[in-house]
Amino acid sequence: MSSKKEPFNLWVEADLQGTVRTRYRVTKTLFEATSQFQHIAIVETAGLGRMLINDGDVMLSERDEFVYHEMITHVPLFARPGVERVLVIGGGDGGTVREVLRHARVRYCRLVEIDAMVVDACKIHLPQTAAALDDPRVEVAIEDGVAYVARTQDRYDLVIVDSCDPEGPSEPLFGAEFYSNVHRILSPDGVVVSHAHSPFYDAVAQASLLRILGDSFRRVQIYNYSNLTYPGGLWSFSFASKGDFCPVGDFDARRVEESGWSFRYYSAAIHRAAFVLPEFQIKQLGELLTPLG
Amino acid sequence: MSSKKEPFNLWVEADLQGTVRTRYRVTKTLFEATSQFQHIAIVETAGLGRMLINDGDVMLSERDEFVYHEMITHVPLFARPGVERVLVIGGGDGGTVREVLRHARVRYCRLVEIDAMVVDACKIHLPQTAAALDDPRVEVAIEDGVAYVARTQDRYDLVIVDSCDPEGPSEPLFGAEFYSNVHRILSPDGVVVSHAHSPFYDAVAQASLLRILGDSFRRVQIYNYSNLTYPGGLWSFSFASKGDFCPVGDFDARRVEESGWSFRYYSAAIHRAAFVLPEFQIKQLGELLTPLG
Repeated sequence: MSSKKEPFNLWVEADLQGTVRTRYRVTKTLFEATSQFQHIAIVETAGLGRMLINDGDVMLSERDEFVYHEMITHVPLFARPGVERVLVIGGGDGGTVREVLRHARVRYCRLVEIDAMVVDACKIHLPQTAAALDDPRVEVAIEDGVAYVARTQDRYDLVIVDSCDPEGPSEPLFGAEFYSNVHRILSPDGVVVSHAHSPFYDAVAQASLLRILGDSFRRVQIYNYSNLTYPGGLWSFSFASKGDFCPVGDFDARRVEESGWSFRYYSAAIHRAAFVLPEFQIKQLGELLTPLG
Repeated sequence: MSSKKEPFNLWVEADLQGTVRTRYRVTKTLFEATSQFQHIAIVETAGLGRMLINDGDVMLSERDEFVYHEMITHVPLFARPGVERVLVIGGGDGGTVREVLRHARVRYCRLVEIDAMVVDACKIHLPQTAAALDDPRVEVAIEDGVAYVARTQDRYDLVIVDSCDPEGPSEPLFGAEFYSNVHRILSPDGVVVSHAHSPFYDAVAQASLLRILGDSFRRVQIYNYSNLTYPGGLWSFSFASKGDFCPVGDFDARRVEESGWSFRYYSAAIHRAAFVLPEFQIKQLGELLTPLG
């Protein structure tokens, strides 16, 4: 009967490997439904703004999504100038597309998202990211990304695999056939950047992804960033080049300065520092990585 | 009545600001008691080894403690050669002392821990870190660190403030009087490194600490690392120099290579990259930081 008692004590909880769980206090459930592919929820949290949760895993929060979205886009787009055509696979929330579109050279961005319900729900409840999907340079295609890269004759300068972890509908996005097709549809100097797990909690999946990339791509790197709402906080993106392009050695910091843009996480210095891996990760992945420079 | 049902489903849960909670599956409670200062527990977890929990906050896990302990020690000790006398305040688990002792030049390390029960419990249940406290170069003093730095006439080359967040017994360790005394007991080129919160979840406390350091110290920096078991994962240490010493500009990477040591997180490249801050943190702290170099 204490006056401090919460009238309705609502938490959403994400599980990792059955041993670690992160819970966020929910003030309102804005959307909750089960699509053909997964359970989708968008909730208002007490500390992190709105949050998208697919099959129980946090996809993004309004408060920290800038980190993930700046790092998955500006690293390849500032490293490799002249990108005009971008393919985003997954990423139905629109945050990756929003950051891609800041680059004026990009004249076409195709988002291939398997689940229409993610796009529709985010357009209503997460305009901070999803508003970008209405831009005229963007085409949103509701299709299986694996099937699209297998069938298309289109070509891209940059492919961004903005997926969940390799469970449920995202699993084939971590396979060899998928990446062999990504390689095929990339321009000769093309790059693919992919969500690449946590070096701490999923070293095996991280190594597996790099091994698959190494089968097709000439140069394979990994870079880290802090994901505030993913377990452990230390997470990675892979960076694979079809040509001889190195994201550090061939990176010109002046491009970032000349943009005059304001970032919240990314900078030219962060770009370089992100490719500096902790020793345990180098030991796990060393032989799978192309030397930088 | 499912055969998959856990017979005893035990979790320990750490709260952050009433909005984010992290839970770890516990397989055994090894120690649990309330000292004069705080509640102390050491549990065996399913995914992260043993874990020390003070007043409900995770202090360390056996699986990831190497990150915190390598970064709080090797950054100052490789940056500033010739450190012979080290004072560690807090850190009763012994992990910081263990890494300090790898530096052969260190001939005396004093650990000032307010709570004897932390030291005693860790010696029994966390030998991975606490075994270092039996080294002949170490003196363990059970005393309030604030009182010790106020009264002592001893001098140190390096002070490491290995505290909890500014709540409970740790609170005065974040105050101006404490740091003015730390400044007094440091040798002319002395350095103090302190646990400095999360830039994402506690920007105000981080700025407050840097402001206090700036009142006494000539150079004030902050550097980041990934703490896998602290909320959000992106955490910081402050680095303050009594003299003109810069932890990046005056850092010689050859010292690390010449040590021949094996690290699990730290390296010369990580040392430099740790001082590269994300843009939102620079905006929060910019004017409080001394330019590097």
